[in-house]
Amino acid sequence: MNAENAEIEAVALTGRAADPRVAEALRLLAEHLLRSGKNVRVIDGEELDIGLSGITRSAEAELVDGAGLIVAVGGDGTMLHAARLAAGTGVPLLGVNRGRLGFLADVSPEKMLDSVDDALAGRCIAEHRMLLRAIVPRSTGTVSEIALNDVVVSKYATGRTLGLQTWVDGNYVNTHGGDGFIVSTSTGSTAYALSCGGPIVHPSIHAVVLVPICPHTLSDRPIVVGADSVIEIELAERFDTAAQVICDGIVLCDLDPGVRLKVARAEVTATLLHPPGHDYFRILRSKLHWGRGGTMKRRAED
Amino acid sequence: MNAENAEIEAVALTGRAADPRVAEALRLLAEHLLRSGKNVRVIDGEELDIGLSGITRSAEAELVDGAGLIVAVGGDGTMLHAARLAAGTGVPLLGVNRGRLGFLADVSPEKMLDSVDDALAGRCIAEHRMLLRAIVPRSTGTVSEIALNDVVVSKYATGRTLGLQTWVDGNYVNTHGGDGFIVSTSTGSTAYALSCGGPIVHPSIHAVVLVPICPHTLSDRPIVVGADSVIEIELAERFDTAAQVICDGIVLCDLDPGVRLKVARAEVTATLLHPPGHDYFRILRSKLHWGRGGTMKRRAED
Amino acid sequence: MNAENAEIEAVALTGRAADPRVAEALRLLAEHLLRSGKNVRVIDGEELDIGLSGITRSAEAELVDGAGLIVAVGGDGTMLHAARLAAGTGVPLLGVNRGRLGFLADVSPEKMLDSVDDALAGRCIAEHRMLLRAIVPRSTGTVSEIALNDVVVSKYATGRTLGLQTWVDGNYVNTHGGDGFIVSTSTGSTAYALSCGGPIVHPSIHAVVLVPICPHTLSDRPIVVGADSVIEIELAERFDTAAQVICDGIVLCDLDPGVRLKVARAEVTATLLHPPGHDYFRILRSKLHWGRGGTMKRRAED
Amino acid sequence: MNAENAEIEAVALTGRAADPRVAEALRLLAEHLLRSGKNVRVIDGEELDIGLSGITRSAEAELVDGAGLIVAVGGDGTMLHAARLAAGTGVPLLGVNRGRLGFLADVSPEKMLDSVDDALAGRCIAEHRMLLRAIVPRSTGTVSEIALNDVVVSKYATGRTLGLQTWVDGNYVNTHGGDGFIVSTSTGSTAYALSCGGPIVHPSIHAVVLVPICPHTLSDRPIVVGADSVIEIELAERFDTAAQVICDGIVLCDLDPGVRLKVARAEVTATLLHPPGHDYFRILRSKLHWGRGGTMKRRAED
Repeated sequence: MNAENAEIEAVALTGRAADPRVAEALRLLAEHLLRSGKNVRVIDGEELDIGLSGITRSAEAELVDGAGLIVAVGGDGTMLHAARLAAGTGVPLLGVNRGRLGFLADVSPEKMLDSVDDALAGRCIAEHRMLLRAIVPRSTGTVSEIALNDVVVSKYATGRTLGLQTWVDGNYVNTHGGDGFIVSTSTGSTAYALSCGGPIVHPSIHAVVLVPICPHTLSDRPIVVGADSVIEIELAERFDTAAQVICDGIVLCDLDPGVRLKVARAEVTATLLHPPGHDYFRILRSKLHWGRGGTMKRRAED
Repeated sequence: MNAENAEIEAVALTGRAADPRVAEALRLLAEHLLRSGKNVRVIDGEELDIGLSGITRSAEAELVDGAGLIVAVGGDGTMLHAARLAAGTGVPLLGVNRGRLGFLADVSPEKMLDSVDDALAGRCIAEHRMLLRAIVPRSTGTVSEIALNDVVVSKYATGRTLGLQTWVDGNYVNTHGGDGFIVSTSTGSTAYALSCGGPIVHPSIHAVVLVPICPHTLSDRPIVVGADSVIEIELAERFDTAAQVICDGIVLCDLDPGVRLKVARAEVTATLLHPPGHDYFRILRSKLHWGRGGTMKRRAED
Repeated sequence: MNAENAEIEAVALTGRAADPRVAEALRLLAEHLLRSGKNVRVIDGEELDIGLSGITRSAEAELVDGAGLIVAVGGDGTMLHAARLAAGTGVPLLGVNRGRLGFLADVSPEKMLDSVDDALAGRCIAEHRMLLRAIVPRSTGTVSEIALNDVVVSKYATGRTLGLQTWVDGNYVNTHGGDGFIVSTSTGSTAYALSCGGPIVHPSIHAVVLVPICPHTLSDRPIVVGADSVIEIELAERFDTAAQVICDGIVLCDLDPGVRLKVARAEVTATLLHPPGHDYFRILRSKLHWGRGGTMKRRAED
Repeated sequence: MNAENAEIEAVALTGRAADPRVAEALRLLAEHLLRSGKNVRVIDGEELDIGLSGITRSAEAELVDGAGLIVAVGGDGTMLHAARLAAGTGVPLLGVNRGRLGFLADVSPEKMLDSVDDALAGRCIAEHRMLLRAIVPRSTGTVSEIALNDVVVSKYATGRTLGLQTWVDGNYVNTHGGDGFIVSTSTGSTAYALSCGGPIVHPSIHAVVLVPICPHTLSDRPIVVGADSVIEIELAERFDTAAQVICDGIVLCDLDPGVRLKVARAEVTATLLHPPGHDYFRILRSKLHWGRGGTMKRRAED
């Protein structure tokens, strides 16, 4: 239970306001919060063009400063971005989906005002999710980024596949030939990793999933390792391959042959809020259309 | 196009009348056909307890005798059974699904009277589907059966897995360790074979799919071979395994170690009728909930 | 490190002595241990017919009584059986493989005497592995068994598939249509669960893997949940299905419709010993033939 | 059987001579052929720097002109390139692998002189393999290329996934969200398509396999369609995706949103020669390490 919020005075709102549905939801949320006597914080610039007084505009980096809650409206991309903004601040994130129910945005637009009230009143369920940190030592200086879902090494711009050597806690694992490699959190297990054959990992499990992408070797299968494992990945030297490091879908940098990408548990976490009555398996059933979709009845059964 | 039916005088009806929805549909069909001046044939006994005169009751084996059309109401099991009854007779089969649209029963109950009229008038699309024949030489005499979907060798009654040697046209393929092995037609490719990792094979392709069930060897993958291939399967001798041969979901017999099951294209085919406007890919999309179900949106895309 | 064995006086030996290679290895081990002044314990009866004095024969249930080490020779079946015998006693198990290196039997016959000496001297690496307990309430009394690898519900004796409802910690998960369902430990993740599409789970992870067997619904994917989760499974009522509960490959009992199988972490653990220098990933590479087998080179790469 | 070669006077040789093993093999082949009184043709320039007289050097496009046989030394990339050079000329291709046995290069270096003699004497087995033709209408003119293995649409340079609409013979199939899409021949079914979950298709089957790459929708499975099907693929409009068309691993061009890639059976075929005794399933077993690699023994079986 979310017992942390003794007195929330300011709420940060975020979303891609270029989408009219998102803009409308943000406007309704802002009005509701202002009426409730809360300060509302938004990112300065394009994000929210609603003529309401009492709204504080700030640079993106300061969006959550002083806020006791961040509400994001949109899809997974928006949630991932908001989670990275809030990571390490302790400010909890409530996600309002724009269309279909999401794993990260599990509040529907119709219920968003009620859910915000639940969040302000401490009635939501708070979950602390781990993040990963990717570190790439480059000649121009070390590059680093955090990710809530996954750090991916992906082939890039040529038809050539990659040979990627991997280590877990210094122990050599394998040289994976294929299109790339995913290091995923439990949170990310239902995202890209699932498309590549990875398992669904309950968010309560502290684990990291290693998933080869389209591996040449058919027995090169997903491996679940501990959340505190240090994963290292190095691209094998070859004349015509190119690889990128991608964090939560955003390209971080190239991975040159011989450079060793390090992925480990980040020093920060994100706090996700779910409305009362949240049920992970219900969301799974809905997202994966269990019981309704993708079902094949078979054989002489009627 | 189904140009074969110059003058259909009798129509055979079949379905599991123990299901009230099926019984009701069969009654409506019988009334409609009698009003249209057709003879109606049903299986004697339990199947149809509707007090209509003008209905001919016969043994199951004679159901389609003299009929120009067989209409089956129910699910895949009913369709498979009806297809085996009609196989080799040239009598075309129209399938009315009881609940959801099926690959074999693609007429909905609401449209069944129109579709029957389409079938009688030659407006349906006729497809000739191959069947398989399974032959098992046993000490008590050779056992044989036909199948529209698949012939399966399955482990049986113990926790032990099977070792199955396979040959295609006399060429040794592999010894498959696992839960069993499927020989599937294109028709059956969307049934059990799909659950076991097999591909979808368009019904127009004359091919047979060989699918290992839960194979120990992770590189033991489905193989598509020609429709005229002769497949042989033999259970490796071991003290504690037991295997069954199953045709379209019906157990045919045990497969004892050292006995060689032979599966080949049957000498008979089945003729399926589809309503005008039939679109295989539309049924695929519906059955597999493409575009709606089982979809995972991912990463920073909104 | 295995610091528990201050003074081991007796060693239990087990294996299927009907296999001459196993019998020979057991004889060599017994001679070596007797020469080292240890007591040797074997199961009374068929198991070891070697004319050595100084060997204590006991009922299977008392095999490990007073022993400080159990050495098992054979394959995975032998190891699983030995692990269940030793579970809860604290007696560590050293596994000598008979043929190929195994996950549980990772000592080769050539090195077994050295490894036994390592075990006696406390130089082996000790791993504590969780077990599962399956509980089936039946009209004739509750049936219960432990398993190191997996508890499986499997279809049985008919061509019919199962509908299995599952719950995790009281939360409904799904109704899985297919050939059955696996509840696997990390230890069992490289056994049957892997054949059915489950992930490899590092033994250090405290987790349980839920794997549907040949599911009808293509989005019905493996789920990793916490080791302390209580899993419940119930067979849906239907006229012609039959299911069995299987623990580590041994049939425990039938699962009748409406009866709820409960699987949870067992109250006992097993202690596995590995020779110094043990490397889990090296065994994975060897067992899965990474780098050598199952590899497909592809496309215009040379 | 290869009855076509009444009198072969010239043999074309090709391979990446930058690889010393390839250069040595090419030199041995050239000497052997010259001793046998044959003319030897090589590509002018870098390819073969062996000081032998009697060798005709030509532009790549004319390599096979007047030749009765082409021998390629190397891996799959070399074979694919040679097959495209020979496609439509009727000149058969014999593939000498440089390292491990390949599907296309199934002659080992030790047996290459014997196999060349077999080819010259008509003792080899000739197989006619279909190729695909990819056609991309672009503002700068239509781009077109042939492929023996596959035509692939692949995401490119961003972390964003693709939405690809597909049609078969004008019938809409699906909108595939994911990393891309493969159109593969039977020949290519054991290459990239296999890594992406496609089936193995025996080369004798005239079929094309459609394989989505890492699809979001878990029920988006490989489909086998007829060899004469026309496949169309169009990238859905979205602000941040980019896609490439790749033929046999070589980038052909970008695929811009709204442009419809057409893939159909090419008007040319390639003729592959196999040494006497060729056995497709033996090569499969070797390449996939069946019976040796990737095998998981399981449960209480010993």
